[in-house]
Amino acid sequence: MSLLTIGTVAFDTIETPYGKAEKIVGGACTYISYAASYFIDKINLSAIIGGDFPQEEIDSLKARGVNLEGLEVDSEGLSFFWEGRYHTNMNSRDTLITDLNVLQDFNPILPESYKSSEYVMLGNLTPDIQMSVLEQLDGTQKLIAMDTMNFWMDIAMPRLKEVIAKVDILIINDEEARQLSGEYSLVKAAAIIHTMGPKYLVIKKGEHGALLFHHGQIFFAPALPLAEVFDPTGAGDTFAGGFMGYIAKTGDISYEGMKAGLIHGSAMASFCVEEFGIKRLKNLTQQEIDARLDEFAKLVHYKI
Amino acid sequence: MSLLTIGTVAFDTIETPYGKAEKIVGGACTYISYAASYFIDKINLSAIIGGDFPQEEIDSLKARGVNLEGLEVDSEGLSFFWEGRYHTNMNSRDTLITDLNVLQDFNPILPESYKSSEYVMLGNLTPDIQMSVLEQLDGTQKLIAMDTMNFWMDIAMPRLKEVIAKVDILIINDEEARQLSGEYSLVKAAAIIHTMGPKYLVIKKGEHGALLFHHGQIFFAPALPLAEVFDPTGAGDTFAGGFMGYIAKTGDISYEGMKAGLIHGSAMASFCVEEFGIKRLKNLTQQEIDARLDEFAKLVHYKI
Repeated sequence: MSLLTIGTVAFDTIETPYGKAEKIVGGACTYISYAASYFIDKINLSAIIGGDFPQEEIDSLKARGVNLEGLEVDSEGLSFFWEGRYHTNMNSRDTLITDLNVLQDFNPILPESYKSSEYVMLGNLTPDIQMSVLEQLDGTQKLIAMDTMNFWMDIAMPRLKEVIAKVDILIINDEEARQLSGEYSLVKAAAIIHTMGPKYLVIKKGEHGALLFHHGQIFFAPALPLAEVFDPTGAGDTFAGGFMGYIAKTGDISYEGMKAGLIHGSAMASFCVEEFGIKRLKNLTQQEIDARLDEFAKLVHYKI
Repeated sequence: MSLLTIGTVAFDTIETPYGKAEKIVGGACTYISYAASYFIDKINLSAIIGGDFPQEEIDSLKARGVNLEGLEVDSEGLSFFWEGRYHTNMNSRDTLITDLNVLQDFNPILPESYKSSEYVMLGNLTPDIQMSVLEQLDGTQKLIAMDTMNFWMDIAMPRLKEVIAKVDILIINDEEARQLSGEYSLVKAAAIIHTMGPKYLVIKKGEHGALLFHHGQIFFAPALPLAEVFDPTGAGDTFAGGFMGYIAKTGDISYEGMKAGLIHGSAMASFCVEEFGIKRLKNLTQQEIDARLDEFAKLVHYKI
């Protein structure tokens, strides 16, 4: 089983009430790939970086078994950079700087070996790039999931809807689901989004967990209540990576399989927020992951 | 098994994006009693009403098996009245009118037969009244739960803490837990609130479900995602009534028993919001409740 991950590999400067981390490694594709790497060893990464990206961070991804054949390096350019500051509640943040840099010219050409990836996780990028990736695939994919954001709904909704029509799973947050559907109720929003194409819809609610919708059926995965959320950056991408990585591992793309995927995604996201950036995702043990999965089971288990 | 319920029996005028209901029956004790009445038939209600409260509404409570010996009627006065308007998201509301009326002079004298109630649900009232009720009890209670609100934390924190020290379960919402503990993280808030006395803490998060804390253990009961939340008024009290009613029925005051209670409270609350006021709570069938409990089970059930 192989998983194609596409998105940003980048730098972030992050300020939270717990401190500030300057120019650390981030990017959707980075988080997705690290999280998925705990479940499968065939991850085909597609992204672009500048000459400023440290070799040891590339080596670190390689060491997690990530195939970097599709990692484009523009040695003349700078990597994508984002700087943001979280509010006290950690649920909202201000973006201070967004430097697209090399991302402006990103036009991913998939290596031949990537085109038959059975599973695909399209990170948040312009709908044009997402469509270009879909068009390069060989059509044998078992499951294609995508993320997006409000920004593309604001400026490129028609194109975005063309991409959404081509995927099996849309993974977005509650505000994005509301904007995309024009409905406040997430149940109503899901019904409308199903008509746009995706048979599965995952709505992320941050610290309030995530919902899976599948034509009238609803599953809820809680977020683990934590004493300290150190840095929420990348939690959504880590969730998506754990989710798709686990599904790629089991090969179970049924509703039941998706539910188990959601729990694994939530478990991986609960690690992500415990440290700045990708730090916590670099050296997890299977024991730690199993123990976390147990905590999730205990959190919702009851008998009547 | 008998459950003492104490709180307001009142009128509400409610405006939501779905419409307006003028001077309908509300009040914490009303919602608590209706919800609990589906699980036990010995409910001892203590409240005060004015001469304006309709006889048929009193008869309706009686018909649900509620003992009204402790319902004080001040025929010269008017019942407590609240008017509020919900915002589009239904999570926040503006209070437009609060007329205490007969509630100003409420000094509940418990009938003899109430004093040995095994279970007690103290609705949101002044800490002085809550304490007065506790002092009238005969000390044989199996489980005492209480609700409160930010307002009492603002103006009567020391007295409120004296009451909290005497109960087994505190049932409050997330903002109240944060204010009471001074901690933003609910996990940290719970640890502090446990030191104030209650061995169980239930934190209600509205549409995001409810958390049960018990000395380091955490259980999460989701709210049912609904296509339409018609009127959230009383949902928290209905939750508390279903919770305590179910526990009173089973007699199981263990952590496992509390968990099952939380699910029953959530199920009852999910009915409450489907209509204005107490309408939906008046004529539920056991089949409807069982079907709703099934929906909750499906919502969180997964296999790994």
